[in-house]
Amino acid sequence: MIEKLVCLAGGVGAAKFLQGLVRVVPEENITVIVNTGDDMNLYGLHISPDPDIVMYTLAGIVDEDKGWGMRDDTFNCLQALHRLGLETWFKLGDRDLATHIYRTQLLKKGYALDKITQMLCKALGLKIRILPMTNERVEPQIITNIGKMHFERYLVERGAKDNVLDVVIEGAESAHPAPGVTEAILEANAIIICPSNPIVSIGPILAITKIREALRETGAKVVAISPIIAGATVKGPADKLMRGLGLEPSAYSVASLYRDFLDAFILDEVDREQKQKIEALGIKAITANTIMLSLQDKAELARLALETLQKTTD
Amino acid sequence: MIEKLVCLAGGVGAAKFLQGLVRVVPEENITVIVNTGDDMNLYGLHISPDPDIVMYTLAGIVDEDKGWGMRDDTFNCLQALHRLGLETWFKLGDRDLATHIYRTQLLKKGYALDKITQMLCKALGLKIRILPMTNERVEPQIITNIGKMHFERYLVERGAKDNVLDVVIEGAESAHPAPGVTEAILEANAIIICPSNPIVSIGPILAITKIREALRETGAKVVAISPIIAGATVKGPADKLMRGLGLEPSAYSVASLYRDFLDAFILDEVDREQKQKIEALGIKAITANTIMLSLQDKAELARLALETLQKTTD
Repeated sequence: MIEKLVCLAGGVGAAKFLQGLVRVVPEENITVIVNTGDDMNLYGLHISPDPDIVMYTLAGIVDEDKGWGMRDDTFNCLQALHRLGLETWFKLGDRDLATHIYRTQLLKKGYALDKITQMLCKALGLKIRILPMTNERVEPQIITNIGKMHFERYLVERGAKDNVLDVVIEGAESAHPAPGVTEAILEANAIIICPSNPIVSIGPILAITKIREALRETGAKVVAISPIIAGATVKGPADKLMRGLGLEPSAYSVASLYRDFLDAFILDEVDREQKQKIEALGIKAITANTIMLSLQDKAELARLALETLQKTTD
Repeated sequence: MIEKLVCLAGGVGAAKFLQGLVRVVPEENITVIVNTGDDMNLYGLHISPDPDIVMYTLAGIVDEDKGWGMRDDTFNCLQALHRLGLETWFKLGDRDLATHIYRTQLLKKGYALDKITQMLCKALGLKIRILPMTNERVEPQIITNIGKMHFERYLVERGAKDNVLDVVIEGAESAHPAPGVTEAILEANAIIICPSNPIVSIGPILAITKIREALRETGAKVVAISPIIAGATVKGPADKLMRGLGLEPSAYSVASLYRDFLDAFILDEVDREQKQKIEALGIKAITANTIMLSLQDKAELARLALETLQKTTD
C-alpha cells in the first residue's frame, strides 16, 4: 500500500480519476495538488473552479451531468443578478455560491487559500488532503485573435471559439508553492499526474518553478495519464490550446511536456502507435482504456496507475 | 398636487404606507429618505434591510407574508452556508442575495450607497427617488441585559427577548446626510414621517444632526403617522425599545419625540383619548384607522396624510 501518494490535478478529468483512486487507496494517504490558475473574481467573490470541482466530486455533491457545480442546484441568485444587469456567463448555482461567499469572507479575514481549502474539505467530510498549488495569483492568459483573456472567459463566455495564438501563465515564476506542496512532492512514495489539460490545468502547476524542481528532484516515480485520446479531448479545449502553442494534440505531445520528470505514461489503446515514440523519450508507456464512464472504469484506471508506479519502482 | 413630497421611512410599516402613497401621488414627486441604521455586514456582504424592503415592496416583488425579502425566493445558498458552519439567523434568500452581492461589489468599486440605491431603483423600474439617510456608518446599538448588540441581532437572532436598557446610535453625530437629503427636506412642499419604529428606524435618521436641523428649518409642514396602536406595535419591537428608554409606548410618546418639528400627527382611533394631550404639545392630532391590511387601507391613510398636510398649510 502506498503511504504517501501525490496527485497533480485540474478539474473535471482529474476529479473523475480521483473518484476511482479513493476506491483503491485510503483517502488519508492521498495529497492532491490542485490548479488554481482558473481562479477568478466574479461579483467580488473569489471562485476556485478546479479545487471546487475536485472537492464537490469527492464529496459526492457534484452535478455529474456537467462535471462541475452542485447537484440539484438552483439558479435564482444568478437570475436576479441578470435582472440587475450583471454579466452571468459563469453559471453560478445558489448552493455553489455559498462556497464562494465562504472563501471570499475568509480571504478578507486574512486566511490563506490552503487553509480555507482545508476548512472546506473538513466541512464536506473529506479526509483526502487537497492543496491549492499556490496561495498567490498565477493566471494563464489565453492570447487569441481577439485579444488576451482569462481561461474561463475563453472557455465559458466565448465557448472556446477564438483562435488561440499563445498561452501565457502570469505570475508563475515568482509564485511560491502553497505550504506543504514541495514537501509533499519530495516526501511522496509515488506521484500521479491526473488526466487534465496539460496547458491550463497541469501547465500552471508546473510553471511554478519550485514545483517543477521538486518533481525533478523527488525520489518518487511519476506516472501521467493522457487527457488526449485520438488527437482530441474528452472534455475541454486542451487540443485547441495545444494547437495554438504549435503542438500536435496527441498523447505523445503531453508526455513530452512532462519528459523532464516523467517515469511512465498511460495512454489510450487507440493511440498505441505512439507508444514507441514515447518510450524513445525514456518514458515507460502503457496503453489502456482511459475513457472513464463508470465508477469501475475510474477505479480500474487508478489501479493501473498504481501498478505502473509499482512496476516502475521495482 | 404636491410637487415635492418627502417621506422619512424605516422598513415594513413605511413600505406599506408608501404602497398607498404611490396610488395617490405620482412616484416622481416623492423622495423617500430611508434608514440605513440596520445596515450590516454578513458574510462580507453589505446588507441594507430597510432600503431593500422599501424597494422590493414598491417594485411589487416583496414577500408580502413576511414584509421583507423577495417573493417566491429559495434558500439554497443559506442552507449551504449553514452546512459550512456559518451562522444563518438572518434569512437571506437566493434572489435577495443578488442585491447584496451587487451592492457590495459596487461599494468595493468606490460607489457610494446613494448612487447604488439609485442604480437598484432603476434596475427595479422604480421612478420614486429613494435616498439612504447617509452614505456613512450610523448604527443603533441595543444595550441589553446580556450586552450590546446590532439591532438585527437583537430582533432576528435573539427574537427581541432581551431586556433593553438603552439604545445608542453610534456614528450619528459626525455623519453627513447623503447628497440631496437636506436639500430635499428644505425644498419640500410637504413631509411625512412614515409609521416606523421611532427608536431604531426614524430615530437614526433624526440622530443625524443636519437632518434634524433641516426638519426644524424647512418651510414644509410635517405630519407623522403613529406606529404605536393601543400601546403596542403592529410589527417589530418599538414598544419594547421605548420601554427600555423609559418611555411609555404610546402614540403620545411618539409625537413628543418629534415635537420640535412636527405639525400634525395621525393616531389610531383606539387611541383617541391621547388626542388632547398631543394637541397640548402644539401638534394637530387626527384619529383614523391606521392598520393597513388592504391596499385600500394604505391609500386611504396616504390620502388622509396629504389632506392633513393641506389643512395644516392653509
